[in-house]
Amino acid sequence: MSNTATDSSETTARHNEKMKRIKAARDKMMAGKTEEKGLIIVHTGTGKGKSSSGFGMIMRCIAWGMPCAVVQFIKGTWETGEKRLLQAHFAGECRFFVSGEGFTWETQDRDRDVAAARNGWEIAKQQILDPRIRFVLLDEINIALRYDYLDIDEVVDFLLTQKPPMTHVCLTGRNARPELIEAADLVTEMSLLKHPFRDGVKAQKGVEF
Amino acid sequence: MSNTATDSSETTARHNEKMKRIKAARDKMMAGKTEEKGLIIVHTGTGKGKSSSGFGMIMRCIAWGMPCAVVQFIKGTWETGEKRLLQAHFAGECRFFVSGEGFTWETQDRDRDVAAARNGWEIAKQQILDPRIRFVLLDEINIALRYDYLDIDEVVDFLLTQKPPMTHVCLTGRNARPELIEAADLVTEMSLLKHPFRDGVKAQKGVEF
Repeated sequence: MSNTATDSSETTARHNEKMKRIKAARDKMMAGKTEEKGLIIVHTGTGKGKSSSGFGMIMRCIAWGMPCAVVQFIKGTWETGEKRLLQAHFAGECRFFVSGEGFTWETQDRDRDVAAARNGWEIAKQQILDPRIRFVLLDEINIALRYDYLDIDEVVDFLLTQKPPMTHVCLTGRNARPELIEAADLVTEMSLLKHPFRDGVKAQKGVEF
Repeated sequence: MSNTATDSSETTARHNEKMKRIKAARDKMMAGKTEEKGLIIVHTGTGKGKSSSGFGMIMRCIAWGMPCAVVQFIKGTWETGEKRLLQAHFAGECRFFVSGEGFTWETQDRDRDVAAARNGWEIAKQQILDPRIRFVLLDEINIALRYDYLDIDEVVDFLLTQKPPMTHVCLTGRNARPELIEAADLVTEMSLLKHPFRDGVKAQKGVEF
């Protein structure tokens, strides 16, 4: 801030004027957005934040009194912080189901993986259809879809035709199928710009799990 | 799954073999990752998930008994789910500070925004320096840095030279400064592939806040 007083107050005046214009444009835009609907949400990409952002939304639902459910498709055997916290504190607000037995390279048994994924999908359908549940997180389901443990057409068809209109469903995992992206309302790709694993740093509590 | 039994068992055998190779490569890679360190984490980009993923990590920290702190730089006046939940249930585990008064186009007063941001940064430094605190989320600080409410060199210098080695700091918000990305250990860019605002859907509880 090495401006003279005059420069600085000019800058401030210009800034305030610009913000006024932005606010007017934004207010106008937001006034047209009146619809509420249950969304099909996809978090994909190779970056971090796909699951943690899903769990951040679960936290928001719990805060607003919206009953919710999590089905974990792949990370089943991991002891994650999110599982610990939800089971210990919010078992009434958020149902928590585990269908997978670890990432697929851990089991090395395709038939077992397919059975676990199908089991998870049956639970997922029940939760989505349950009229009390407002938000369902299908964590890492994209991995199960990518390896054809689950049929992509069946999943997309169910979401488009049987999901109650006000229920949100969030599907996470890298390599989301194009059919799912096409069907979704809100798709975010998390990309890795930098990762400390490259420098020999291991997965750490609080950050990765 | 229209394969004959033979095709299917061949597919399964090939798959299991491939997973075995992936697991061996992965075990070898992970064995080299032994270091634990406090990370400088950045969530940027125009997509969703920057803050919610930060709050997902806060949830993980709480679950593992790691005391943490949140400083919200911009969204101060919003009543968000994450604030409600943390203040109601985890005030002991996670300190929660608000420095901002809404997005900058709401206040239309640069001097007030600068004062709020500087106040937030003073709080942030105290929390980062506090040896009890293991993870600090600086939510939307990138907006304050982008508009020069805070000096980027001062922030980066503090993180690189004064952050305790085992403390994680996560900085969120679009348009992260290149200097911050350069200094960070873990950087994720959230990109928007699809957003329902385009179709007249408004920001909804549980999803956006």
